[in-house]
Amino acid sequence: MTTGSVVDLDAVDLFGLTTALVAVPSESHQEAALARIVDERLRLRAPTLSIEAVGASVIARTHLGRDRRVVLGGHLDTVPANGNAVPRVEGDVLHGLGSADMKGGLAILLRLAEELHAEPERARHDVTLAFYECEEVADRFNGLRRIFEERPELLDGDFAVLLELTDAWVEAGCQGVIVFEAHFDGERAHTARPWMGRNAIHRAAEVIARLAAHESETVVVDGLEYRESLQVVRVDGGIAGKHNVVPDSCTVVVGRRFAPCYSPADADAQVRPLLEGADSVEVLQSQPGALPNLTNPLVSAFVDDLGLPVRPKLGWTDVARFASRGIPALNFGPGDPEIAHTAGEQVTRDSIERAYATLARFVGVG
Amino acid sequence: MTTGSVVDLDAVDLFGLTTALVAVPSESHQEAALARIVDERLRLRAPTLSIEAVGASVIARTHLGRDRRVVLGGHLDTVPANGNAVPRVEGDVLHGLGSADMKGGLAILLRLAEELHAEPERARHDVTLAFYECEEVADRFNGLRRIFEERPELLDGDFAVLLELTDAWVEAGCQGVIVFEAHFDGERAHTARPWMGRNAIHRAAEVIARLAAHESETVVVDGLEYRESLQVVRVDGGIAGKHNVVPDSCTVVVGRRFAPCYSPADADAQVRPLLEGADSVEVLQSQPGALPNLTNPLVSAFVDDLGLPVRPKLGWTDVARFASRGIPALNFGPGDPEIAHTAGEQVTRDSIERAYATLARFVGVG
Repeated sequence: MTTGSVVDLDAVDLFGLTTALVAVPSESHQEAALARIVDERLRLRAPTLSIEAVGASVIARTHLGRDRRVVLGGHLDTVPANGNAVPRVEGDVLHGLGSADMKGGLAILLRLAEELHAEPERARHDVTLAFYECEEVADRFNGLRRIFEERPELLDGDFAVLLELTDAWVEAGCQGVIVFEAHFDGERAHTARPWMGRNAIHRAAEVIARLAAHESETVVVDGLEYRESLQVVRVDGGIAGKHNVVPDSCTVVVGRRFAPCYSPADADAQVRPLLEGADSVEVLQSQPGALPNLTNPLVSAFVDDLGLPVRPKLGWTDVARFASRGIPALNFGPGDPEIAHTAGEQVTRDSIERAYATLARFVGVG
Repeated sequence: MTTGSVVDLDAVDLFGLTTALVAVPSESHQEAALARIVDERLRLRAPTLSIEAVGASVIARTHLGRDRRVVLGGHLDTVPANGNAVPRVEGDVLHGLGSADMKGGLAILLRLAEELHAEPERARHDVTLAFYECEEVADRFNGLRRIFEERPELLDGDFAVLLELTDAWVEAGCQGVIVFEAHFDGERAHTARPWMGRNAIHRAAEVIARLAAHESETVVVDGLEYRESLQVVRVDGGIAGKHNVVPDSCTVVVGRRFAPCYSPADADAQVRPLLEGADSVEVLQSQPGALPNLTNPLVSAFVDDLGLPVRPKLGWTDVARFASRGIPALNFGPGDPEIAHTAGEQVTRDSIERAYATLARFVGVG
């Protein structure tokens, strides 16, 4: 593609490059085309970095002999399109799937690679740039998980930044998540004589009401307010179209987001009493959070030296994956987290450029 | 098929004939084969009755010039098989789909037709025997509904008996039924920030709990205790497998069985306040009940002259269809109503013979 076309994968400016990346579809499990473009651009424009692939993930690393190594990670995949597959530029606003989550971040990583190649002497740290697959789907597909399993040395480092949407705030740590499926049994009967059976939905009703009425706490960790939550995300009882049968089965799925000072076991112990009355409870998902680690020297160097505002990360992110391996990590990237996964996803030129400037300054090439 | 085979459609004894009828599959919408057998047997063994077909229903009538006409109705169809499609005789017990509901009743009707043909001079009333299709499925398919619409004269009469399973009790009148679907809206959001959305299941929780906790009344009509009920039969909220989305939709289906002294409008007014909080409420089904009419001369002639025990019918039956047309009706037939629609459905020889004897005596051929 030649310079000057609307979608220009050779674009040098971050906004144009982000637009070009949005134009390449990369729904989870279908990132190969985008990974190839990233790989080719890195080989062309940042050839002094070592470049390796694991699945559809691409990892580029400097080897400058610096004391510390910083890992910067951005996922290649997007959620499914929602009428927003085609990028649309209005002035300095880019609309479209993945514009904020997180192709703006990928453009920043590509540009950093090019600067590190062009002016390696300025780099304050060695840098690992991880472009990874399948962040938006079940954890077992996650590209970082796979690299940590198959080639953990590729993600070695002293500090990690995930280019999650934070609107240029530092979002420190992340909350944990645990999801329960509670099942209620019953006995079928004709609804004209319900006392001959046992209504599974009626049995679940008190638990559903208890969960809905639960008021979650806000837990302060390192001065940050982690606002927990408890949400019934699914309820399924009875048989569609069968109005004359007392239902013998009702399933309730409830998700808990918990502050990073608690373990999944703590969260389990907090939620179980609310499920009392269920015949069985299964844990569908359980992931620890990540402490904000604001007193860690590398974290405070990032936050304080760059003068960035800090708030807690409420959703789970891959910072927990680094944290669980002893690598302090935080979330920092362009884009408004509130519009992630919405049809109206967008990112501004300024948001991308400011996030780039911050990261470039931290790395030393800014 | 020759006399003496295990399944003998020429059987004279009621138990053997019931067994033969059970061996002919007749799930709703697939009653044609059974209807043909009924039609042929009537033409062969009760040729002085007029025999007519409407869809897969068969109506046989005497024309003896009696003062009153009694309509006796039995449905041809069964619910779907549940491992019980093949009839099995153990001593004087017949097991199998439709044995009680209601092929025992159909055998009785066939035998009455034959007696009315053989000894018309004994008949106290003119008699209409209605073998009808599609009682076990949605009302719009109901054979009696179709006959009343297309050939109402075929069901003219002064009194009707439906051969529903009553274990040889008179089950008087029937309760009405009304089914509501309540919908709750919400707004999607990421479960890490649920306060950005609105959880439709949480909004429904209070209504579900209110419905589950509701204690229905027992209403006395003509001295009979109609035990009402209110059952949540279906609840469906959220998206299967999506644990990180605050659900934006929850549907609750609730069925009410109400005493026959109330109209559907009365029942609607009783239930609506319990659904307060729903964004929309749709009535999926609404059928009036039938008063027991125990003081009606024909009903009391049946009940008192034959010395039968009486209890209220709690489920909706086609007696309401006759009652709504000014024809007093009651339920009376062999078989235990508690085992209708179960895999263990069965009927005893004695139950069929006693019900036959009662009806034959009422008609005058016993």
